[in-house]
Amino acid sequence: MTSLDEARAKDAADPLRHHRDAFALPADTIYLDGNSLGALPKAAVAIMHDAVTRQWGERLIRSWNEADWIDAPQRIGDKIAAIIGADDGEVIVADSTSVNVFKLLTALTAQRPEATHILSESGNFPTDVHIADGAARAAGMDLRLVDRDAIVDAIAEDTAALLLTHVHYKSGERYDIKAGTAAARAKGVPVLWDLSHSAGAVPLDLDDAGADYAVGCGYKYLNGGPGAPAFIYAARAHQADLRPALQGWMGDARPFAFEDAYEPAPGMGRMLIGTAPMLSLLALECGVDAMLAADDAALWAKSQALFDLLTELMADRCPEFTLVTPTDADARGSHASFAHADAWPINRALIDACVIGDFRAPDVLRLGLTPLYTSFQDVWRAVDVLAGIMATETWRDPQYAERATVT
Amino acid sequence: MTSLDEARAKDAADPLRHHRDAFALPADTIYLDGNSLGALPKAAVAIMHDAVTRQWGERLIRSWNEADWIDAPQRIGDKIAAIIGADDGEVIVADSTSVNVFKLLTALTAQRPEATHILSESGNFPTDVHIADGAARAAGMDLRLVDRDAIVDAIAEDTAALLLTHVHYKSGERYDIKAGTAAARAKGVPVLWDLSHSAGAVPLDLDDAGADYAVGCGYKYLNGGPGAPAFIYAARAHQADLRPALQGWMGDARPFAFEDAYEPAPGMGRMLIGTAPMLSLLALECGVDAMLAADDAALWAKSQALFDLLTELMADRCPEFTLVTPTDADARGSHASFAHADAWPINRALIDACVIGDFRAPDVLRLGLTPLYTSFQDVWRAVDVLAGIMATETWRDPQYAERATVT
Repeated sequence: MTSLDEARAKDAADPLRHHRDAFALPADTIYLDGNSLGALPKAAVAIMHDAVTRQWGERLIRSWNEADWIDAPQRIGDKIAAIIGADDGEVIVADSTSVNVFKLLTALTAQRPEATHILSESGNFPTDVHIADGAARAAGMDLRLVDRDAIVDAIAEDTAALLLTHVHYKSGERYDIKAGTAAARAKGVPVLWDLSHSAGAVPLDLDDAGADYAVGCGYKYLNGGPGAPAFIYAARAHQADLRPALQGWMGDARPFAFEDAYEPAPGMGRMLIGTAPMLSLLALECGVDAMLAADDAALWAKSQALFDLLTELMADRCPEFTLVTPTDADARGSHASFAHADAWPINRALIDACVIGDFRAPDVLRLGLTPLYTSFQDVWRAVDVLAGIMATETWRDPQYAERATVT
Repeated sequence: MTSLDEARAKDAADPLRHHRDAFALPADTIYLDGNSLGALPKAAVAIMHDAVTRQWGERLIRSWNEADWIDAPQRIGDKIAAIIGADDGEVIVADSTSVNVFKLLTALTAQRPEATHILSESGNFPTDVHIADGAARAAGMDLRLVDRDAIVDAIAEDTAALLLTHVHYKSGERYDIKAGTAAARAKGVPVLWDLSHSAGAVPLDLDDAGADYAVGCGYKYLNGGPGAPAFIYAARAHQADLRPALQGWMGDARPFAFEDAYEPAPGMGRMLIGTAPMLSLLALECGVDAMLAADDAALWAKSQALFDLLTELMADRCPEFTLVTPTDADARGSHASFAHADAWPINRALIDACVIGDFRAPDVLRLGLTPLYTSFQDVWRAVDVLAGIMATETWRDPQYAERATVT
């Protein structure tokens, strides 16, 4: 079994170790929830102060031109494109992941009026399912949900679109984008990939995989801050044909002409709707810049090493937990989920001990591995604390049974 | 004609003069564009620093519960409700104005499948028109646009919804909410009011006016920061029947149960879709708090006095401009628009002289009067600078003909 000294040695040999210094991690906390809310890039403190006091406070409306607020969705989109293997102009930052799913699904149902349903996975992240349900209803179609292993067989010629989450939020299972896209294409069906748990977590090359459509989250592995705006991707060849039901003035070809008639902006610009929440957008850019500073092959190699250490230590010291995440690296993302009937109070006790993971109903303790700033010592200490909680049964204290609003 | 000394005397007698101190206005600038981007409340500097460094940086995911991020949309919504004459629980903060218009219009078309069209005004703010066009298309309906004076006659039994902007973004003309709502109700048609240019600008009492639905902007008179999230209102009696096509996990009754089936949250909670851009939301709260600290009758009285001073001075010193905003206070908002064939280069020359208004195509110079922080001296000096630009014809310098991305 790996010792604390051995974990320290892994940190000393970690080629990414200096990236941790770019994040403002609290000294008393072991943070394994960067897959839910990424840590604060230190650079964001000064950048946000400048955004508030100078750009907004002193320069006021002039910053739309001077500070190039107006192009921030495209500029940050291009940076995210570099992370997910897309080209300049294929990604734009806008709204939330949910709203972006809606844009793409309504554009796809409009293109395929003869289709009867949108297809997705039972137990997909709820917002994908809810959005697909609303988009299907709006198009007079149904939402069809099938189990993961039945997806490929369920793709039919009357499927308007297939909506899949690349890495499952709970189990961590990962689809193969290239294979999934090809299987759907064989039936003439477009696939929309939700990359919320994979962008910044696993190597992605959307263009190489032939992916058509994708969305993803800014506040998880991209470290964009709480509720950071999301991104939306469409392969260049499809962009001119996309007409979402949601169309607003910032997606018009000439928003400042103030005309009644809507003409979609060229390319992904049409995916903008209202005015972007600029402070949140500028914070996202800090997170994306921090991610761009690291080599993605090194990140994924470290993610695997962290996973291996975590699962080895858990199997040894906390055998009452059942790993539900695939051990095959190609079949998972960058978090590890462990089932335990008492995962809720155990997670509360962990948080109380300043080890932050999260709980996913009904029985999963989810631990995120964010190789930009998670250390091998973090993993060792987290398991050590958890083993202590299990040995002493402190999690049985009635205070930990109490439910919180957000889990 | 009012002298600078007399303007100074008006400031000295202004019961709201101390509120200006709550804003970080640049010393060298006369800012008459708070109707486009409100000024920075000084309190926001420390609050945003805390939000970034402590809430996000140190407390991380724990802030969703500890700092009550999760209830911010409702909490700030209740504060805005107090500004617009609505009740607790009738307003929630979410997304952009555009997306909120879409939510309400899709819910209303779904309720009235026998209707044939959405009705709005030609020359309404473009995003309202574009969103209504998309929502109508999604419902298999048309968008019907008619001139302002033909709206009432155009309301028909097969109108799914009437979408009107309370105060016109360009002319400043104001509808009577009570009369408009009653006229539509007589034909059984619901009205959606866009309050972007009136919330925080003119006295509003939605409940008293019998208003059914409304949306509005956070970054104009509410001083919420660039691209601040918007608000959405529905009278309590209607809330349980609203099912927008856009439905996401944050609007589910139990988002952290992570279930496939969507059950709309009670009340306005269902209008939440994805995770809110929290940094932008917390900045908005600062602006709303600054507005709540002032008496709204005093604000409106001062707005009228500022308007009277501005129009008197413009008529006297800049007679080449034509006032397009109604002089009747009950028929307008809190900005004054002046037509001039060369409004574009004149506005650029004004900005160069640190007098910030804005241009609205094709020929309008728009000057916003935000009584929380606009002084009588601001108005006097702005007209003085403009008169100088007109007298010296500096606006004819070719540099001012150049177009900017954002006007």
